[in-house]
Amino acid sequence: MTLHGIFAPTLTPLLPDLRVDFDRLLAHCNWLLDNGCHGLAVFGTTSEANSFSVAERMDVLDGLVDAGIDPAVLVPGTGMCAIPDAVALTAHAVRLGASGVLMLPPFYYKGVSDDGLFAAYSEVIQRVGDSRLRVYLYHIPPIAQVGIPLKLIERLVKAYPETVVGIKDSSGDWANQEAILDAFPGFGTLTGSEKFLLENLKRGGVGTITAVANVIPDRLRAFYDGWQNMDDAEAVAAQDKLNATRIAMQGYPPVAALKEMMASMRQDPAWRTVRPPLTVLTEGQRVSLMAGLDLGKIAG
Amino acid sequence: MTLHGIFAPTLTPLLPDLRVDFDRLLAHCNWLLDNGCHGLAVFGTTSEANSFSVAERMDVLDGLVDAGIDPAVLVPGTGMCAIPDAVALTAHAVRLGASGVLMLPPFYYKGVSDDGLFAAYSEVIQRVGDSRLRVYLYHIPPIAQVGIPLKLIERLVKAYPETVVGIKDSSGDWANQEAILDAFPGFGTLTGSEKFLLENLKRGGVGTITAVANVIPDRLRAFYDGWQNMDDAEAVAAQDKLNATRIAMQGYPPVAALKEMMASMRQDPAWRTVRPPLTVLTEGQRVSLMAGLDLGKIAG
Repeated sequence: MTLHGIFAPTLTPLLPDLRVDFDRLLAHCNWLLDNGCHGLAVFGTTSEANSFSVAERMDVLDGLVDAGIDPAVLVPGTGMCAIPDAVALTAHAVRLGASGVLMLPPFYYKGVSDDGLFAAYSEVIQRVGDSRLRVYLYHIPPIAQVGIPLKLIERLVKAYPETVVGIKDSSGDWANQEAILDAFPGFGTLTGSEKFLLENLKRGGVGTITAVANVIPDRLRAFYDGWQNMDDAEAVAAQDKLNATRIAMQGYPPVAALKEMMASMRQDPAWRTVRPPLTVLTEGQRVSLMAGLDLGKIAG
Repeated sequence: MTLHGIFAPTLTPLLPDLRVDFDRLLAHCNWLLDNGCHGLAVFGTTSEANSFSVAERMDVLDGLVDAGIDPAVLVPGTGMCAIPDAVALTAHAVRLGASGVLMLPPFYYKGVSDDGLFAAYSEVIQRVGDSRLRVYLYHIPPIAQVGIPLKLIERLVKAYPETVVGIKDSSGDWANQEAILDAFPGFGTLTGSEKFLLENLKRGGVGTITAVANVIPDRLRAFYDGWQNMDDAEAVAAQDKLNATRIAMQGYPPVAALKEMMASMRQDPAWRTVRPPLTVLTEGQRVSLMAGLDLGKIAG
């Protein structure tokens, strides 16, 4: 019923004029799929989703499918502040054949009620009006500020049981993720950080959409495929190894740091470009980040 | 060089299907202009700006001008998370003849640097590339979370002295507004709350863009025109009277409360509708809000 596995919130390479660098993006998507990702959460937070217009996002989705990416591996981010935007982008993704969409709540107004968020999701679901739609709620309070409380999940699942089938929990709060796993067995709970991957899978979660899948897809996949054959100590040790990339990135802006890693792995400085308001790493940050990483090991 | 006076972040009435109710909006705009507003900050936060797509906002701007609203009174909100959206909307407003635009910073990513925000504003200004553009920065950290620090104002004014000509300070923090007034004499500093209007004007500020201008435009205008002829005690007493509306609204969601006031003033319940994630007042809230207001007095 829900997606399972390792999903990359795909980094979006950019041309010098800040347009999407489609050729590098396509190559990256194919590399991710060839190296362990079950699917691609294009236009997640790590993809700089909210820095792109609806038209830019649609063009990328069309381009990927035209270039031979199976639409079934796509789980694009489609949640936006304005309902008409979310409806247009979500409907487009469903028509293309995406297996699901990752849907932020409208995130401009703060302190909004569960009633208001329920109404916003309802409007989008009803206006898309397509039985093929599968929504993964996107809970990322550190950035969106507007989160998705358990009571809201409960109402949405009750109202749209065939449609609202999962969540990406990027709260960074294991207690919240555990509460979701306990409250909604069978719901597609994806951890937003690989650091909770073992616990997520042990508790019946379905996998992860994690920024570091952009650089260590193979290791994440090996863990996902192998953890059930490990004893407890082995599994914990394997989880610890997975955590090394995120630990090395601590204190650096994550999107710029991941793009810097890509630039190093590909020996291709064009990978560094980000769209404002994000900024590239300083030279000092580059040096210190790379000193803390063994890219040969990370890239596997 | 900058706008002066009383500006309403114009409430956006909605049809039952949540589309913009253009007829009521036009009537409201004309009423505001006939009753004291110098101009209209259509698509500010109070207008539910971020709940509308770029196309919806352009249509409204076109419609208002087509219907005879002088484009020179318009100061539309055009700041968005995605640079292409902000460019498209800003360029459209300039072409229409708007006297200025009110520009939020990109507000999805949190903890971004001044360098990143400077780059984002620069991209929009340069891509619009029109010497007629006048930007009013929009500092509203309680909602956008991403604010506009003094250092950033300084850099923008230095880089674009003819273009970045003012700010709406909706921080609710008088110390911040005072610091802006002190640091940038001649800059168009508009208070985002009428509660600081007297102090703003005394210190060389240019007026206000305030939510309550939707319901008490005449009183705000009378104060703006008359404060210099009052002695200190009279001016403070007049300022205190202006504060009554906001005080009565405390604890209620502001957009829904203002729309409820409009519904009462016009005896027109259609005014109540808001777009999710906002919600209308509960029946209990309606009763208690109205009990705390003397609409006859407020509407002047």
